[in-house]
Amino acid sequence: MLIQPPKGFRDFLPKEAIQRNFLIEKLKTLFEKFGFDPLETPTLEYAEVLLGKYGEEADKLIYIFEDRGGRKLGLRYDQTVPLARIIAQYQNLPKPFKRYQIQPVFRAENPQKGRFREFIQADIDIVGEESLLAEAEIITCALTTFHYLGFKKTKIIINDRKNFLNFDKKIIIAIDKIEKVGEEKVIEEIANKQKVKEKKAKEILNKIKSKKPTEDLLKLFSLLKAYGLKEGEDFRYQPTLARGLDYYTGIIFEAVDENYKAGSLGGGGRYDNLIGTFSPQTIPACGFAFGFDRVLEATKQLNLLLPKQTTTQVLVTVFSPNFLQKSIEIATFLRKNNINAELYLNPEKKLDKQLKYADKRGIPFVLILGEEETKKNVVKLKDLRTGSQKEVSLEETLKILSNL
Amino acid sequence: MLIQPPKGFRDFLPKEAIQRNFLIEKLKTLFEKFGFDPLETPTLEYAEVLLGKYGEEADKLIYIFEDRGGRKLGLRYDQTVPLARIIAQYQNLPKPFKRYQIQPVFRAENPQKGRFREFIQADIDIVGEESLLAEAEIITCALTTFHYLGFKKTKIIINDRKNFLNFDKKIIIAIDKIEKVGEEKVIEEIANKQKVKEKKAKEILNKIKSKKPTEDLLKLFSLLKAYGLKEGEDFRYQPTLARGLDYYTGIIFEAVDENYKAGSLGGGGRYDNLIGTFSPQTIPACGFAFGFDRVLEATKQLNLLLPKQTTTQVLVTVFSPNFLQKSIEIATFLRKNNINAELYLNPEKKLDKQLKYADKRGIPFVLILGEEETKKNVVKLKDLRTGSQKEVSLEETLKILSNL
Repeated sequence: MLIQPPKGFRDFLPKEAIQRNFLIEKLKTLFEKFGFDPLETPTLEYAEVLLGKYGEEADKLIYIFEDRGGRKLGLRYDQTVPLARIIAQYQNLPKPFKRYQIQPVFRAENPQKGRFREFIQADIDIVGEESLLAEAEIITCALTTFHYLGFKKTKIIINDRKNFLNFDKKIIIAIDKIEKVGEEKVIEEIANKQKVKEKKAKEILNKIKSKKPTEDLLKLFSLLKAYGLKEGEDFRYQPTLARGLDYYTGIIFEAVDENYKAGSLGGGGRYDNLIGTFSPQTIPACGFAFGFDRVLEATKQLNLLLPKQTTTQVLVTVFSPNFLQKSIEIATFLRKNNINAELYLNPEKKLDKQLKYADKRGIPFVLILGEEETKKNVVKLKDLRTGSQKEVSLEETLKILSNL
Repeated sequence: MLIQPPKGFRDFLPKEAIQRNFLIEKLKTLFEKFGFDPLETPTLEYAEVLLGKYGEEADKLIYIFEDRGGRKLGLRYDQTVPLARIIAQYQNLPKPFKRYQIQPVFRAENPQKGRFREFIQADIDIVGEESLLAEAEIITCALTTFHYLGFKKTKIIINDRKNFLNFDKKIIIAIDKIEKVGEEKVIEEIANKQKVKEKKAKEILNKIKSKKPTEDLLKLFSLLKAYGLKEGEDFRYQPTLARGLDYYTGIIFEAVDENYKAGSLGGGGRYDNLIGTFSPQTIPACGFAFGFDRVLEATKQLNLLLPKQTTTQVLVTVFSPNFLQKSIEIATFLRKNNINAELYLNPEKKLDKQLKYADKRGIPFVLILGEEETKKNVVKLKDLRTGSQKEVSLEETLKILSNL
């Protein structure tokens, strides 16, 4: 019998789910700090809302199906097109509309290492504001979020799409890969796609590399300094930054970290023509998308996450059926005092079985309570991480567990 | 152009999304307090994992489609079948396996008031434990959660499916509606379905109503008392409680609230034959599902939720472009001190426009900073809920906003 999730889809067992929840909570906290409010859109949209918005290639990757009523529906492919729909549907929303959205999206791609068919996107966007302050807020919020997560060497690299105004789209696509494949490969690709000699391709690349920051970039840099960000350390102009997506119209940026070389941790920019897709008028917008899986992987790699196996802090054991009442009372007391406490559910099982269970679950403490302890009005608290145990009062138990 | 979500699907704008997030956080906190850890399964499963598990009628309500590779996939219909799959796939999970799961499920039902095609389920389950302590933990956790949410008159009504052992399934289905439709209608339905006279149907109902608690129920009640729960006030035996679902095998229960009459707030029970569906052996299990939308509606109706429109606590206005630097600094200061602060993004806009924006957003405070305030080293803090404003130092500002 089939017991796997479909190819490209993942189960998250407790240890993994705890880390994901932890990261999501941190992201939310920081987004709200900057005045972004949550938005949620449904998993399914009418297919015609999604199709034709992402380009021909992407359209093939949208999960589309017909419901029983014969309507074509599609699974969420990103969070930007649904945002555009929302802006058109609820015209009364205060502008600028600052929202964050953290939901799964679905892409029928060929599954491969690090690429999944369902994955979480975490986006912040400011809709309806053309001032460069929008970019400054987004960039500062993104960088502050990385610092808050414990990343010390994250930097935002910045460019202006206007720097590419007179260049062929294929050149942009080639240049976009420069960090990943290196200059030589980029020159090769430009030469191939533009059908020019390598020398000419190199000239094109050099021309891009020597571009001076646009006026908008200079304005933005001085705004970022007003936020206390340092040029060089916190942000840097990078004329070869291209960003793959079609829809950017102005400033673009990416978060990179010196200590994590597997790729950018997120990116974004200004896209003034997309949000108006469903609306009668053009609507300026600017945003940043965190690569959730990438960020999670990086936090693990840099040991920024506590590798907790469970949220449970203590297992209250049951010494024997006679002590069940006492154990229930203690578990209830701990829970009322804000401790995550699990009660062992089978009083017939031997104590060493109960300890083994706690160990397998990764619960750091077990609480033991027998004849002797009851008489002395104490409990035995064993730290499974070190193996040490001591007799303590309930008050002390609270203190120790609260400091976990 | 189409700008609506599909029929039966919902957008959650910030105000609504904030309330949903708030409720989810509260549920998680309480579930973890009782030693439940999070689990997440993918939105899509292979169709054969889902089909044939819920009954014929339900199978028609599962969203099934074929992917590009010709595999049939289905959208999550509940969280119990995926749990059963997980238990079979990861045989090494410590038992009992206590997990909570809060994810959307999808049902192709006819949309009607209060019934949606995508909605959140919030489940706690204990897998692999046959002791009645499992029921006691689940019931206590559910009741404590309702108390924590502010429900004062919630009670768990309890019965044992074994009370129905010799009754026809159709009688159970009829009895299940007794709270909703009243005794007379139930008698009518029994008479119709069993093809008996009303007198006979009434006898059947009375026989059920006069059933004494089973031995398991009596044991459970004494366990619940060990947890400090009071019979009558916190829980009550109800021989007519039937629970619609097929799969229950023992104790069943529902949460009802005196102050909210629109229906039960959640329910659950023991189902010892379902989890083993994908496994070679039978696996006992017991759980409770919170009716998320129902609970949210009840918290609103009973005013248990702060009707916040935004998570933002203050709008930092920009008096004029000259004061932008100062306003950025203050917003940064507030954010560093744990205040959710929005900076107004267009320094060219008049102050009254900025105030109107804050008001429309539902932000409780605005901070104003002009020539005079800068000289005196204070800010003007205006409470938009009362209209009052005063000059305060930054320290005082922090104090006022932290108490929001």
